[in-house]
Amino acid sequence: MTPPETVSETAMSASTYDPAGFRPLTFHDAVPRFAEGSDTPRAYLERCLDVIAAREPVVRAWVTLNEGGARAAADAATARYKAGRPLSPIDGMPVGIKDILQTKDMPTEQGSPLFKGVQTKTDSASVLALRQAGAVIIGKTVTTELGMSHPGPTTNPFNPAHTPGGSSSGSAAAIGAAMVPAALGTQVVGSIIRPAGFCANTAIKPTFGAIHRGERLGFSQSHIGVHAGCLEDMWRVTFEMARRSGGDPGHPGLFGEATPRPPVRPARLIVMESEGWAMTDGLVADAFEGVLRQLRDAGVTLLRRTDDALIAAFEEAIAESLALCRDICGYELRWTLENLVERFPTGLSDSMMSRLDLARAMSIDDYRHALRRREAAQQALAALSPLADGLISLSSVGPAPVMENTAKDSGVTHTTGLPAYNAATSVLGCPSITLPLIAVDRLPVGVQVIGQRHHDAALTATAGWIAQHVQPESR
Amino acid sequence: MTPPETVSETAMSASTYDPAGFRPLTFHDAVPRFAEGSDTPRAYLERCLDVIAAREPVVRAWVTLNEGGARAAADAATARYKAGRPLSPIDGMPVGIKDILQTKDMPTEQGSPLFKGVQTKTDSASVLALRQAGAVIIGKTVTTELGMSHPGPTTNPFNPAHTPGGSSSGSAAAIGAAMVPAALGTQVVGSIIRPAGFCANTAIKPTFGAIHRGERLGFSQSHIGVHAGCLEDMWRVTFEMARRSGGDPGHPGLFGEATPRPPVRPARLIVMESEGWAMTDGLVADAFEGVLRQLRDAGVTLLRRTDDALIAAFEEAIAESLALCRDICGYELRWTLENLVERFPTGLSDSMMSRLDLARAMSIDDYRHALRRREAAQQALAALSPLADGLISLSSVGPAPVMENTAKDSGVTHTTGLPAYNAATSVLGCPSITLPLIAVDRLPVGVQVIGQRHHDAALTATAGWIAQHVQPESR
Repeated sequence: MTPPETVSETAMSASTYDPAGFRPLTFHDAVPRFAEGSDTPRAYLERCLDVIAAREPVVRAWVTLNEGGARAAADAATARYKAGRPLSPIDGMPVGIKDILQTKDMPTEQGSPLFKGVQTKTDSASVLALRQAGAVIIGKTVTTELGMSHPGPTTNPFNPAHTPGGSSSGSAAAIGAAMVPAALGTQVVGSIIRPAGFCANTAIKPTFGAIHRGERLGFSQSHIGVHAGCLEDMWRVTFEMARRSGGDPGHPGLFGEATPRPPVRPARLIVMESEGWAMTDGLVADAFEGVLRQLRDAGVTLLRRTDDALIAAFEEAIAESLALCRDICGYELRWTLENLVERFPTGLSDSMMSRLDLARAMSIDDYRHALRRREAAQQALAALSPLADGLISLSSVGPAPVMENTAKDSGVTHTTGLPAYNAATSVLGCPSITLPLIAVDRLPVGVQVIGQRHHDAALTATAGWIAQHVQPESR
Repeated sequence: MTPPETVSETAMSASTYDPAGFRPLTFHDAVPRFAEGSDTPRAYLERCLDVIAAREPVVRAWVTLNEGGARAAADAATARYKAGRPLSPIDGMPVGIKDILQTKDMPTEQGSPLFKGVQTKTDSASVLALRQAGAVIIGKTVTTELGMSHPGPTTNPFNPAHTPGGSSSGSAAAIGAAMVPAALGTQVVGSIIRPAGFCANTAIKPTFGAIHRGERLGFSQSHIGVHAGCLEDMWRVTFEMARRSGGDPGHPGLFGEATPRPPVRPARLIVMESEGWAMTDGLVADAFEGVLRQLRDAGVTLLRRTDDALIAAFEEAIAESLALCRDICGYELRWTLENLVERFPTGLSDSMMSRLDLARAMSIDDYRHALRRREAAQQALAALSPLADGLISLSSVGPAPVMENTAKDSGVTHTTGLPAYNAATSVLGCPSITLPLIAVDRLPVGVQVIGQRHHDAALTATAGWIAQHVQPESR
């Protein structure tokens, strides 16, 4: 789709992220203009396509663009606004879909040459729900191989020498490059919140099971989430999907209302260290302390592991979340990978084969033990509920690393940055929202706020207050 | 595969089921002969193929047979026994696979013309596990449309004018016709235990989540189970699958040991009435009372709803299980059906379209309420744990009805018999084993024993004792 040589030309350019100057694309504020006729979904789409045309040669966020289908959908939305009958608050919104989710009108390649051109002719439940709400499905965004470690071609929109993070690489980069106002991502370990942080997104990994995963039910801790330019759009997309598709089978789905709750100042927040804190880049840690200082100055009480035995017990329960994710998700991937290895003996990356080797060495008892440890961690989080309105931590241990850098942890190679702050929230199945509150070396770093299960709407209100009252910290 | 006119010729023949003379095919007793060399898996397979050739023109249990692949697998098993290195206790066992589960070497048509010839090139997790254990995947058995109501061509092996039951029609009929020693079925409402009872199978619907459902995770209460000719084979197939594939993602999988536990006399059993009792055929109810009398005479204490307030509360909690299944499963099917309806506007049966209409009328709050009622039923079952070693009930309200008879209940048409005794155990997610203990009008009727979740191995021991000590009741 894009000639690779254009990347190397700009790969050496300086990072360009400036929190004061960064203007992500938003949609909710355009809707009143659609209603009054001074703007249209079709015109909005064309502006998106212009940005994509300008930036895609370097950013490489997209696997497939369906410009024709998107224009037809935008025209239909335009007609609905004209008739005064939009389908939902996101009618006409251009949305990118991570190419791990099925779309009836585009291939679903899952970041693997093994699925090149595969047409499932089916919309994943979340995609079907978006279409029912009138959203414009503009294209498929790059994912790492099967949503795991091996990277795709996407570059960081603020410096093409750096990773956009993964596995939702293209969705995160598309938001960072202001190509679209929203995109779907998925997270098994750290695949929404980490890349979203690296690309200055506002993004949510909702409560486990809150958004129907359609054909992607094979992991017991994966999530579908939303990358966006602002909290309003993030919430509306999440809610309008859940209202139509429901949650995963057997789950109650997302709780909340169509309109985002107004910002609410948290009285108390727990600072979550997790495995991430010990690995955190010094400048980033310093900037995070700056964020915490602003919160304290605004009257928010902050609690740390030394303040309460329950918090210490919680930190202990999540202290090996990376290894826990490796075991649980590896074991659950075996069936899929064994089938693929038999069909295509050399078709998987080395990092995927090493995951399979680790999983093959596991017994069903090892898996049961891992599930028990996960339940214990979830109980330790629930025990914190009376103490605070939520938790706060970084979204990554540093800004997006240079693309050639790989890190090895828990026997798994990470080429898109370490998910050391994300494994815990994935294990916990609780909602997490990342906000672009830090800039280091002119690259963005996210701060995540974390809530109790099913409190996604309240967490969005907390995040809204923080986004309004905390000034980005630059180092 | 079989000319339809051969069915009508024999359709008027009298029913032939005679519990004393019925000899289902068994495998475990052949294994010692494989080891000593007086029989081989290849010869065993050829005997199965001979029975299939003789009976398939009327029974029509199979969608696809893979004779070549089965012979190659049986030869490989023969060589392993010769070398003294069988892969498992089911190495060389011919197994039929319900055509709702994917197989890498045969199409997966799901009982719908919409999937005619579809090759997924993938083994479902349970099929992969069977192959890893050395089982011989002989073919795909008929399922009703998408595993729901609309029937396939299979006839009852004891009278071709009658239904084999469904949705696991072909698996149940293949066991009843002694074509194979074991076959996989799936149950969302009543699709294993009911047809198994109609066809004199011994069969298990294990604890929810105990056997990995592979690509079939879209229902929050579906199960993979085993139809067999005896309890030994039933347990060994179930265990060897679970040992290799594990349970569903996030579930601990089947508990138990490779060797079936020896028969254990239950001290106390609860007679479960459910919705079925009030609908039950008089002769069948009388035969069931005969079974209970035998149990009482053998020293088993039987408890009924009037004996304990907890039992009465349990019966109340499961009293509308058919409607609960309709709501939960219908809501969960919406996504799949909406995609199919868009692709193939006239491709689904009327009964499937009426399910979709019922589901479309549901809100997410209706679904949440249904989930809560299901949880309450599960809690009511757990509360019975101290009272008894298990529960006992019929597997169906009567023998297999004549094929043209349809029944309507809860807004859903049933063409393969009413699942009135099965909806409850599906809602409960607990293990259930059906035994061929009743004959009425020379057709078989099953009796099911029911255990607490995860007590599949103990339930098999209870069922073993009952199979040994209760003489079939004929009416």
